[in-house]
Amino acid sequence: MQLTIERAALLKALGHVQSVVERRNTIPILSNVLLSTSRDALALSATDLDMEIIDETPGRVDQPGQITAPAHTLYEIVRKLPEGAEVELRYSGEDPRLTIAAGRSRFNLPVLPAGDFPVMSSDGLSSSLSIDTVDLMRLIDKTRFAISTEETRYYLNGLYLHTVVDGGVTKLRAVATDGHRLALAEMLAPEGAVGAPGVIVPRKTVQEARRLLEDAGETVELQVSAQKVRFAFGRAALTSKVIDGSFPDYVRVIPKDNTRILTVDNALFAQAVDRVATISAEKSRSVKMTVESGRIVLTVRNMEAGQAVEEIEVDYDGEPFEIGFNARYLLDVCGQIKGETAEFRFADPASPTLVLDPVDADVQYVLMPLRV
Amino acid sequence: MQLTIERAALLKALGHVQSVVERRNTIPILSNVLLSTSRDALALSATDLDMEIIDETPGRVDQPGQITAPAHTLYEIVRKLPEGAEVELRYSGEDPRLTIAAGRSRFNLPVLPAGDFPVMSSDGLSSSLSIDTVDLMRLIDKTRFAISTEETRYYLNGLYLHTVVDGGVTKLRAVATDGHRLALAEMLAPEGAVGAPGVIVPRKTVQEARRLLEDAGETVELQVSAQKVRFAFGRAALTSKVIDGSFPDYVRVIPKDNTRILTVDNALFAQAVDRVATISAEKSRSVKMTVESGRIVLTVRNMEAGQAVEEIEVDYDGEPFEIGFNARYLLDVCGQIKGETAEFRFADPASPTLVLDPVDADVQYVLMPLRV
Repeated sequence: MQLTIERAALLKALGHVQSVVERRNTIPILSNVLLSTSRDALALSATDLDMEIIDETPGRVDQPGQITAPAHTLYEIVRKLPEGAEVELRYSGEDPRLTIAAGRSRFNLPVLPAGDFPVMSSDGLSSSLSIDTVDLMRLIDKTRFAISTEETRYYLNGLYLHTVVDGGVTKLRAVATDGHRLALAEMLAPEGAVGAPGVIVPRKTVQEARRLLEDAGETVELQVSAQKVRFAFGRAALTSKVIDGSFPDYVRVIPKDNTRILTVDNALFAQAVDRVATISAEKSRSVKMTVESGRIVLTVRNMEAGQAVEEIEVDYDGEPFEIGFNARYLLDVCGQIKGETAEFRFADPASPTLVLDPVDADVQYVLMPLRV
Repeated sequence: MQLTIERAALLKALGHVQSVVERRNTIPILSNVLLSTSRDALALSATDLDMEIIDETPGRVDQPGQITAPAHTLYEIVRKLPEGAEVELRYSGEDPRLTIAAGRSRFNLPVLPAGDFPVMSSDGLSSSLSIDTVDLMRLIDKTRFAISTEETRYYLNGLYLHTVVDGGVTKLRAVATDGHRLALAEMLAPEGAVGAPGVIVPRKTVQEARRLLEDAGETVELQVSAQKVRFAFGRAALTSKVIDGSFPDYVRVIPKDNTRILTVDNALFAQAVDRVATISAEKSRSVKMTVESGRIVLTVRNMEAGQAVEEIEVDYDGEPFEIGFNARYLLDVCGQIKGETAEFRFADPASPTLVLDPVDADVQYVLMPLRV
């Protein structure tokens, strides 16, 4: 194998694939990136066995071939080469190493045979749909913060991407929950979405996909099967296993008939929550919200750290009541609300509260209250 | 105690003192900041028993008094208050807590009596000199990276600040070494420096002083005794114990007669060292430098990670030889050299190498070679 590539192009492609590679691997070849030439391009592929990212970059191929080399080291070397450098990659049977040469720099990296590199099959990826890149970013951004990190309920460790029919209209919906809060974002289903199986996309896949979306074109091709999901971003593509489990019936958790409706300036509310949370205990981060006609009072009392009280004017004229929330969860939701105000729909202090964004009817947040 | 202060002024003063407070303290009051009013100002003081920082900020004092409250929490609260807020601090015998009020925010923090707060005496701080702020920053910046972190040789855990007479001229000199490398920077001694005792300023003190220098006026007042050092930066002041030990006779380590002189482009050299270091083993970070007439070759060989070779044109016409260095130490020195070139003065592969900055005659670096 022998080819020459412009440094910036190689760096970008390596950047796309290398982050899937774990720092420590019990299987040595998983630390490597697979390099394989086509007529006038280099294809790069990295995997952690659950997920595979491939990318491609144009180059002058003098001698075709393929080999694997340490992904992070190769990335670091190319990153540190001077801007504008022409990078030569060379692997011949004579030297059992990959040579990287640019200007007066020369590196030799240990290799492992390309034939041993695990390739993820694309079998069964039937349903195929084309999504606007900005829309897909939005689905992810509005929901991923609520993905659970608890390994016991593994089926919550991902984003549930599925279609629903709502009033005769098919929507593509993303839902994440950790049992304490839930985030839902949806959009009109793109063509091809009808009939596609719902999939739980693992947290790491969501993060890698989100990263690749930054460099994607206007649309992204999405393919799903019951076992796998594949995002194609122009030249780059990410194929991933999905979580083998059933996402809980989340619709039951979303309150429909909460009648105590409160509207508050979202920025003022977030700042006040952030301030009172300074005093809250590390673990529960519990904030008490005393709701009265025209105002709420946020209170945190902590035996060791003291007490914090914030008062905020709100639009509310129902009965007074008290309810408690985790400050972190409130801030996560506030951070995603794009309108000037946030709308809270309460039932009672023991039941789920719905939070809505008045300027975006396609998102819904549910918060379980804490006892205060 | 009752007073009102503009948020930005209070935040700045708290920012100056709070970073000396350790996150965990076995003595509870050390987590606190001492607040005490004067006629129209608030004085703030924080300490870790080895070092004390005080600052002052103007305020409207309605009722004088003093109290201590948790430093980090108070800082976080004030930081999170809206810009332009007027902050009221209040402590009366009735509520055994400090009240912080601003707009519709109200916080109550637990307090400890001001009388229990440890105050560092300034006794014996006789020698007093006035240093240009920029000059003192330079002495610190050029040398602090070489301060040792090994606790066994505790007398190396600081910056040795002292005067020397060199050709009839008195200079103020800063020296740091960890036994593997040494950094020296000096300046014409300011008035008052003659006869001042040499002191080893602890690493944490150096860092805090450097931080406070950013907000200092044109000059800084320095007072020293055999036990203590005090920096006065306008309103803020830092008093610190110095390390009770003898700094080694570093002059013997600085080679005077190294005759193999090599000049290299500093930026190109640093980039090449950084690149080959990608391959170096985590621990030694050893780089081999093969010096020949007109060029050097940098080589790193690592059983696991491969091999890296860089060639750089240099100005050298002596005998060829090979020498090894820790890549991290080379990069630290290159990072401090302001000229376009770095000058290396070698003796032999087993003896200390001197590195000079051709545009700054007042700095010297010594690197102990590694066996390669």
